[in-house]
Amino acid sequence: MRDKMEAMVRNAQDEICDAVSKLDGTSFHEDTWERPGGGGGTSRVIQGGNVFEKAGVNVSVVYGTLSEEAARSMGGGQELGNQDLDFFATGISLVIHPHNPMAPTAHANFRYFERGDGSKPGSWWFGGGADLTPSYLFEEDCRHFHQTFKDTCDKHDPAYYPDYKAWCDRYFQIKHRGETRGVGGIFFDNLKDKPADEILAFSTECAASVVPAYLPLVERRKDMDFTPAQKDWQQLRRGRYVEFNLVYDRGTVFGLRTAGRIESILMSLPLTARWEYCNEPEAGSDEDKLLEVLREPRDWV
Amino acid sequence: MRDKMEAMVRNAQDEICDAVSKLDGTSFHEDTWERPGGGGGTSRVIQGGNVFEKAGVNVSVVYGTLSEEAARSMGGGQELGNQDLDFFATGISLVIHPHNPMAPTAHANFRYFERGDGSKPGSWWFGGGADLTPSYLFEEDCRHFHQTFKDTCDKHDPAYYPDYKAWCDRYFQIKHRGETRGVGGIFFDNLKDKPADEILAFSTECAASVVPAYLPLVERRKDMDFTPAQKDWQQLRRGRYVEFNLVYDRGTVFGLRTAGRIESILMSLPLTARWEYCNEPEAGSDEDKLLEVLREPRDWV
Repeated sequence: MRDKMEAMVRNAQDEICDAVSKLDGTSFHEDTWERPGGGGGTSRVIQGGNVFEKAGVNVSVVYGTLSEEAARSMGGGQELGNQDLDFFATGISLVIHPHNPMAPTAHANFRYFERGDGSKPGSWWFGGGADLTPSYLFEEDCRHFHQTFKDTCDKHDPAYYPDYKAWCDRYFQIKHRGETRGVGGIFFDNLKDKPADEILAFSTECAASVVPAYLPLVERRKDMDFTPAQKDWQQLRRGRYVEFNLVYDRGTVFGLRTAGRIESILMSLPLTARWEYCNEPEAGSDEDKLLEVLREPRDWV
Repeated sequence: MRDKMEAMVRNAQDEICDAVSKLDGTSFHEDTWERPGGGGGTSRVIQGGNVFEKAGVNVSVVYGTLSEEAARSMGGGQELGNQDLDFFATGISLVIHPHNPMAPTAHANFRYFERGDGSKPGSWWFGGGADLTPSYLFEEDCRHFHQTFKDTCDKHDPAYYPDYKAWCDRYFQIKHRGETRGVGGIFFDNLKDKPADEILAFSTECAASVVPAYLPLVERRKDMDFTPAQKDWQQLRRGRYVEFNLVYDRGTVFGLRTAGRIESILMSLPLTARWEYCNEPEAGSDEDKLLEVLREPRDWV
């Protein structure tokens, strides 16, 4: 499964980068890095592209020994307690921020984790998800994104989409703002209740759904007119993205605390962001309509 | 002491705002707010001024009951354990971000804390500090800032400046970057080993030192020429400021976790910030010279 998942995420990285690169009209900058404790990764980044302000697609294959604290903070493996602290993890993680404030940001992540030799109950699991973060609400975009992932989920288990949609809304809470980061999508962790090959197939199709779920929205919005005030609002929402990632995102907080590869961890942050004191959109404005949805997550399909 | 300290921070707010407002040529926007659990505050903000991108000067006077967890996480009062969870706190907190990348950012905070009626040993303490965050290093600016606070410290205790300078360098570590946030200043907490009136006098003079320590530097730098690349570097440093505040700053993290008044807590964030993947200044460049000092804090007086 280690090799199969690694092949899957490397293939997904190629396919997603090809599609994003084609839409942007520029190439990704690639670099590979090694992790001092074992393993490494390949990061691909577009910065200041034609369509995308910043797009990062990162693959990592790492192994080593977990601290007991790190083991306790993981989404899976709790059955093992402090035994089998040797680990292997591989995954793909991407965040794509377009220039145009009408075009949403997307994030996705698919990962496989193993402790010990992966033979004990609870010693391996999958996690992942994909979610959309618009600055302006286009309901048809939200529906398209959710419908694409619902279709993928439904092929594997009818319980997946409702469960993982709700999990996504819970996970991406910016608690101190009383808002979600975006309009959600799917989120799952510690998935291990089916044969690993079946969950791999599900993860593979989820990863393959990122391009058809997301890029059509960017194509639709990338050349729309916008005002400087709309750009400022996008920048404020980027600030909220930073708040979520630095304060709440489990992977980011864990990576910062354990001195992971900082540049790959913080690749998710937007190129630019903004914080205004007491910004309050007018009731009924487009900005306010977005906030309504972030304050009370909606069903999109 | 509650009333004396409140009068002190309100007076300091007036004096600092007057001086900043005069230099900027605009007025602060003021609003007052109430804290659901007891007390409230007065926030004053300039946003998009002539000289300052964002300047916030906040006074709060709050009281209520601490959770046991909150009590454990404080800089003082540990002697009391879970007794005397009633608290009173008052303080002034300010962050000033100029537009010009040659002009440094300043932060200062002075606060008084009491648990119970403040009569038991360890039930009251003072905390505070002031520190400077340049994007470009002007050694004479660093010396002036540090010398001003050293002079103020020395009037009260010759041990203060060396202790509090070192504490400041330790506190403002962005651990995941291996950098300090800026070039430091002074930082102290749980100060209670002299009569309260003496520590109040020290805090009062520290607060009065903010204007003479900092504003001359802004006057000197505010009209200097700069390139777009230098502006970008300032924005990257602003990103680091955000990283420190959201990930490490005790007051910010505590405020977010306990649902303090979010807008006042996050008033410290810059108006705009930037994150680039793998930005590495050229060896020997001005940007690199700043990083050297942030990686290995220097003595300035």
